[in-house]
Amino acid sequence: MYRNSTCGELKLADENKIVTLAGWVSKIRKMGGMTFIDLRDRYGITQLSFNQEVNPELCEQANKLGREWVIMVTGTVKERSSKNSNIPTGDIEIIVAELTVLNASQTPPFTIETETDGGDELRMKYRYLDLRRNVVRQNLELRHRMAFETRRYLDDRAFLEVETPVLIGSTPEGARDFIVPSRMNQGEFYALPQSPQLFKQLLMVSGFDRYFQIVKCFRDEDLRADRQPEFTQIDCEMSFVEQEDVLTTFEGLTKHLFKTIKGLEIPDFPRMSYADAMKQYGSDKPDIRFEMKFVELKDLTVGRDFVVFDSAEYVAGICAEGCAVYTRKQLDELTEFVKRPQIGAKGLIYVRYNEDGTLKSSVDKFYSEEDLKLWAERCNAKPGDLILILAGETEKTQKQLCELRLEMGTRLGLRDKNNYKCLWVIDFPLLEKDEELNRFFAKHHPFTSPKPEDIPLLDSDPGAVRANAYDLVINGVEIGGGSIRIHNSDLQKKMFEVLGFTPERAQEQFGFLMNAFKYGAPPHGGIAFGLDRFVSIFAGLDSIRDCIAFPKNNAGRDMMIDAPSRVEQEQLDELGIMLKPVKE
Amino acid sequence: MYRNSTCGELKLADENKIVTLAGWVSKIRKMGGMTFIDLRDRYGITQLSFNQEVNPELCEQANKLGREWVIMVTGTVKERSSKNSNIPTGDIEIIVAELTVLNASQTPPFTIETETDGGDELRMKYRYLDLRRNVVRQNLELRHRMAFETRRYLDDRAFLEVETPVLIGSTPEGARDFIVPSRMNQGEFYALPQSPQLFKQLLMVSGFDRYFQIVKCFRDEDLRADRQPEFTQIDCEMSFVEQEDVLTTFEGLTKHLFKTIKGLEIPDFPRMSYADAMKQYGSDKPDIRFEMKFVELKDLTVGRDFVVFDSAEYVAGICAEGCAVYTRKQLDELTEFVKRPQIGAKGLIYVRYNEDGTLKSSVDKFYSEEDLKLWAERCNAKPGDLILILAGETEKTQKQLCELRLEMGTRLGLRDKNNYKCLWVIDFPLLEKDEELNRFFAKHHPFTSPKPEDIPLLDSDPGAVRANAYDLVINGVEIGGGSIRIHNSDLQKKMFEVLGFTPERAQEQFGFLMNAFKYGAPPHGGIAFGLDRFVSIFAGLDSIRDCIAFPKNNAGRDMMIDAPSRVEQEQLDELGIMLKPVKE
Repeated sequence: MYRNSTCGELKLADENKIVTLAGWVSKIRKMGGMTFIDLRDRYGITQLSFNQEVNPELCEQANKLGREWVIMVTGTVKERSSKNSNIPTGDIEIIVAELTVLNASQTPPFTIETETDGGDELRMKYRYLDLRRNVVRQNLELRHRMAFETRRYLDDRAFLEVETPVLIGSTPEGARDFIVPSRMNQGEFYALPQSPQLFKQLLMVSGFDRYFQIVKCFRDEDLRADRQPEFTQIDCEMSFVEQEDVLTTFEGLTKHLFKTIKGLEIPDFPRMSYADAMKQYGSDKPDIRFEMKFVELKDLTVGRDFVVFDSAEYVAGICAEGCAVYTRKQLDELTEFVKRPQIGAKGLIYVRYNEDGTLKSSVDKFYSEEDLKLWAERCNAKPGDLILILAGETEKTQKQLCELRLEMGTRLGLRDKNNYKCLWVIDFPLLEKDEELNRFFAKHHPFTSPKPEDIPLLDSDPGAVRANAYDLVINGVEIGGGSIRIHNSDLQKKMFEVLGFTPERAQEQFGFLMNAFKYGAPPHGGIAFGLDRFVSIFAGLDSIRDCIAFPKNNAGRDMMIDAPSRVEQEQLDELGIMLKPVKE
Repeated sequence: MYRNSTCGELKLADENKIVTLAGWVSKIRKMGGMTFIDLRDRYGITQLSFNQEVNPELCEQANKLGREWVIMVTGTVKERSSKNSNIPTGDIEIIVAELTVLNASQTPPFTIETETDGGDELRMKYRYLDLRRNVVRQNLELRHRMAFETRRYLDDRAFLEVETPVLIGSTPEGARDFIVPSRMNQGEFYALPQSPQLFKQLLMVSGFDRYFQIVKCFRDEDLRADRQPEFTQIDCEMSFVEQEDVLTTFEGLTKHLFKTIKGLEIPDFPRMSYADAMKQYGSDKPDIRFEMKFVELKDLTVGRDFVVFDSAEYVAGICAEGCAVYTRKQLDELTEFVKRPQIGAKGLIYVRYNEDGTLKSSVDKFYSEEDLKLWAERCNAKPGDLILILAGETEKTQKQLCELRLEMGTRLGLRDKNNYKCLWVIDFPLLEKDEELNRFFAKHHPFTSPKPEDIPLLDSDPGAVRANAYDLVINGVEIGGGSIRIHNSDLQKKMFEVLGFTPERAQEQFGFLMNAFKYGAPPHGGIAFGLDRFVSIFAGLDSIRDCIAFPKNNAGRDMMIDAPSRVEQEQLDELGIMLKPVKE
């Protein structure tokens, strides 16, 4: 061992101990005849002290060190004259007697500090240096702890972690699979799993009763800021359970993580139906850290010849507390915000409820103050508040109003990252209609169970069927989702029928699961959490990227190792594949 | 919840409780007016009892159930009249009051029993039913527990589990990579990792200090019985350590697993140099559950005109205690055994040390009884023992004698699966020479550190350089291996030179690691355990396959889901690849 103590543990109580430390030179300061070095390892920083008068040779050696050199020192723990209360080891320093250089370092391309001068691309290319920064490493320590506590909680409750295969078969449904050519079975391909869905259901058929796995999954989609081609799920499944059992178990897990990791006691999670979430927040993952619910106003706005509202399917507003004082400029900013192409509203109507009780709106031409008063009443607005109104096609406008609501929440400081609000969204619709293709798709996946009372609707009104499906939402981010599965093969057949699968195609794609279900499938259900997002929420990060050790960029490229890359022709030959000639 | 108790927990103390159970119908027995059902779940079996006289309707319903149907019952716990001491619930039964069929089952293609009538192929095809068998499920429960205890032990010692990427770049060295075409970067490929070696070393450069990961790795090799294209490693790395620190930490892990999982206290592991292992056991993974070490006899055999020995580079024997009584037939069997093509010996010489003190050999024509006596003395043989001798080229003969030794160990019952002997094999050679190509290859991998005292030999006698490399061997099975790494870029350059890499090629393949090493790499080393084999050893299995939930067969095929398989032309088009036309 190159050390007998770490850089994070020595205290005044250790005074006069002779210790050996090893780590990286973080800072060198020369003051008078003294040289001070901040020695850094994963556990902390300890000050090393060299005295020009006492040991000129050693001090000279210390002066020659550079940033990020790796050294080993032996010395005596002494109380510092000027203490640093910001770090746990700030009361002491090491009077160094021996210094060994374990490795030199070139000057790193950016500073290894919490606030670094390195840009995003540079930090990704030198990720191994970026990972030296406390802030980045702490995210990964948090990730380790969350995964570990998840395992402990589930193990305590008789869940078994079972590894499911990574090399599986391709399923043409849904997002794109990554595929892997097989050398031993030429012309054939494995696929990488988008989730272990089928395998976990098979494990329930096998009587495993309670399964979980923290597992890499893969999706070959065009990447957005918050997506990675490989991501990690906490994947879970239980037998002989109903929705309530799954919610209880995993609400417990979430509370356990908040408690053990952040020391927070989270009260029981409220539940909201999908229908209510859409109606009140315009989103299936509402941020309930603040209210500002949607208020429908259509009926109060008709008959005043305002064509925008009269012709709109949907008119609704939100009430921003205390914002009547917003300036013209601020209101213009909000109008610009909703008109951005990503949001796409045509305009924004406002009603100022002034402190003096008067009401002023951008549609005064059409509406009297009494009209506005009625709107304000329905919005529960009081003097000093601002009502913001959007109108148009229902779903689109709800989405726009949702964005506006979030923007207002941010502006009003209502979205504190350290304030955690958890929510179950339940009663999702079973099916989603693709109007263009005029067919239904499974909202969750084709094994999701409809609510028993809605089964008759499968024939008469498939779009109205609700599922035993649920999402866990924290602060407006979908952290997990799951469902009770269909365990009855007749119902499963029916479901495939509604989804427009021929029996042949259903057999081809899901045959092994459907066959398995013939041999005694128990009632079962489960949930999967996105670990990357879960950690991001705990870490207060905006992107999942910084809680992944070696992430890929938006082009799916690992900048550090420069992958993907070309391979040798020989390798392709062995696999029996060729590159398609590039078209000119 | 479909139950309030499991099938494994009810005892006499629960008598008169009303309980609800759910599970699979394992057995139905009719006796007189009674019907008994063994209801099975993951936790055990509980007897259900139906009385024709008391409740004829319910009994009728029970009589109609079939094997593997899934049912839910409510009833009262009662003491059994005829107890079954073989199962924990054997004192009680449930007098059923209500019975609900949750799912019917077709008759399974084989019996769900420890001793099943299902052949290997059938069981693989219906793996989800095979997994219902106690023996198979118990292996996976063991696997869960070993992984969990491994994490607990390492977490306690400040190791962080860090996920490294699965989609990486291809490295042309060593065994074959699986590759994954990139849609977003056409013509380029990701590769699946054969191990996270480079990433874990980068994490050490990043100052992570102690890393581990239980991680899937991939190798596209032709499969032998004990290989799978995807396998799981317990991958570990530590900074600021020497070989001794790694051995201590992971001997500790191994002891922890034996203790917490099997209740066994394993004494400190002996250590053996690679050279001694080869000399005494002809293997770098000797089974030390029994002695029977090789004894070299060449010098005692020369000059007696026995051309087989005289012309042999190597003559050595093993002493099989108490086997002088072996019959002609038994000796012929052994001769056949060593002559099998997989072993390839030309013949077997034996010396019987009879109980009466006389010696009798198959080479009496050439050697006197005094000669044989000298051999026997060197072999520490006593009356009643049998000496078995092979001769030929050193390495080949050692391998053959190793096989013979193991065969004798098995015949003599010296290889009890419940007797665990752990061993560190150390001081592996750094390099291995490919005589045909006349170049050296890294025995472990190109980042393995030579022993400091052997570095000068890198120029003069590379083959003699020993590495700071080590293997953990349990009962003759290599469970793990690792090394101290090179952290000095000059030494790494030297190593690539010895391995015949041009600087350009080294840069191309390992550039990002070599670059990383320029920024202050700490001394570091690690180890990786094969989890599949580790579990197999604990489970007493001959193959790793039965401790994997969904294994592949020897052709790399998953028989259950029928993967790999053909994919749609559209998918290939999108990836920019084509299948090579099959040659006629």
